Amino acid sequence: MELKEYLKERKEIIDREILNYLPEDPPFGKRLYEAVRYSLTVGGKRLRPILCMAGCEAVGEDYRLAILPACAIEMIHTYSLVHDDLPAMDNDTLRRGHPTTWCKFDEATAILAGDALLNRAFEVLSEWEFDCERKVRVIQEIAKASGMLGMVLGQQCDMDAEGREDVTLEELLFMHRHKTGRLITASVVSGGITGGGSKEEIEALRKYGDGIGLAFQIVDDVLDVVGDQEKLGKNVGSDVEKGKVTFVTFFGVDGAKKRAEEEVEKAISALDIFPKSRVEPLIGIARFIVEREY
Amino acid sequence: MELKEYLKERKEIIDREILNYLPEDPPFGKRLYEAVRYSLTVGGKRLRPILCMAGCEAVGEDYRLAILPACAIEMIHTYSLVHDDLPAMDNDTLRRGHPTTWCKFDEATAILAGDALLNRAFEVLSEWEFDCERKVRVIQEIAKASGMLGMVLGQQCDMDAEGREDVTLEELLFMHRHKTGRLITASVVSGGITGGGSKEEIEALRKYGDGIGLAFQIVDDVLDVVGDQEKLGKNVGSDVEKGKVTFVTFFGVDGAKKRAEEEVEKAISALDIFPKSRVEPLIGIARFIVEREY
Repeated sequence: MELKEYLKERKEIIDREILNYLPEDPPFGKRLYEAVRYSLTVGGKRLRPILCMAGCEAVGEDYRLAILPACAIEMIHTYSLVHDDLPAMDNDTLRRGHPTTWCKFDEATAILAGDALLNRAFEVLSEWEFDCERKVRVIQEIAKASGMLGMVLGQQCDMDAEGREDVTLEELLFMHRHKTGRLITASVVSGGITGGGSKEEIEALRKYGDGIGLAFQIVDDVLDVVGDQEKLGKNVGSDVEKGKVTFVTFFGVDGAKKRAEEEVEKAISALDIFPKSRVEPLIGIARFIVEREY
Repeated sequence: MELKEYLKERKEIIDREILNYLPEDPPFGKRLYEAVRYSLTVGGKRLRPILCMAGCEAVGEDYRLAILPACAIEMIHTYSLVHDDLPAMDNDTLRRGHPTTWCKFDEATAILAGDALLNRAFEVLSEWEFDCERKVRVIQEIAKASGMLGMVLGQQCDMDAEGREDVTLEELLFMHRHKTGRLITASVVSGGITGGGSKEEIEALRKYGDGIGLAFQIVDDVLDVVGDQEKLGKNVGSDVEKGKVTFVTFFGVDGAKKRAEEEVEKAISALDIFPKSRVEPLIGIARFIVEREY
């Protein structure tokens, strides 16, 4: 299997489908819808929705069953980027090579576009014509991962850590696990729930998600030091500039890379319970995370 | 029935119960939880959750069945206030006689606290131990009312209208119905769904909610002109200051009051299908809305 081709195909599915989950333009307040569409279409690897669909395949179901939760998760991921980029937060002007939503529109519209995306995710999930019990489990999984026990808490930890030199490894791990980890895990786990995975299968997917989630954030820290601004499509060096303690602070570039690789290997071995053919994409994605362009 | 006593009792129930729906403090990022609790506890009439519980009673069930969705709705209402008060939005410093969340904490924390509250509402709803089908209908109702087809859209319309003198009555109505109306309607309707109301009962509650929702916003416009800052616990005169077109612009103070009263009477007559004893609180609340301190 060609991973690159697979990722490209799956990304195109999400690029196309995600806009179908937006309502038609209203007579007033169109600017909100423009900002929402802009935020959803300025690229991105669509890693989380791809993981969701792959999680569904891992438990033996067709990936198309999971397109809806996959799109909902991408909406939540996008909202978090739109809010994180705000002047009061990371104050970023460039994202994936394009102006951030608040730069393209304005701050108020970006706040509302983020709110709209978060809301829309739960709206779409709740209106999903699907088995009621599974649907609710998917909503639980995603809500818990994105809220004050997950991503939002992680972002607060990130804010609290800024400029502080006394951040411990424990605090850094807590922050990473919440800010990036929980939603990545929820992506692959929701796919598994959607596909009707057994308790054992769901737990394996959870371990896999936790491993690649942590690896992903470690690699992000590394890329902020040694990455190529052109290829990444975002500003690099911002962590050092802001005096952020990162994995690189604790382990150095090579040590951080090594830790990321270890996490990925652990993640892959959690998939041993599945027939190999069903989890090839998940294995490929795990390796791809640590091999992103340094 | 003494409405004042009823409202006080119900408000106290929500004041007490709502904090039970928050998770325990985390080891890091506590500031987020402080901001969330602060936002939830600085008062408010708890109108929406009271409507939710009263909607449940109207269809013949015990109000306690609806405490959970009532608290979820209040979380969503609170998030909208926290975000609306931000410098990039209404730039308000005072709310219910207390510093707004961004003033008490900071902008980043206020953005995240709002995000956390919105998320938490759906988390709590999804984890509700309740009939699956009804629960999903309640989630649908609330998500639709608060998102890009409801409150968020209304807030965008409000932003777009600011400083423009060419706002039509049609646009103003659209804005009000979305910004305030939809969530008020969803409150009483969710209560009705929770209590297992019939299709006819739900539609009656929807008409009631639409009527009082509009009346509520009209009265808000009036109070911004003739209200008492002390009693309201917020700054008055801000609409005129910002050059906002309001109901008072179109109808004058007296005309706007009259329109609000008409909407309230229509709302009350929609309740005719219920036994009078079950909807006394809803009737009282409707009248209370137009009799708020001018």
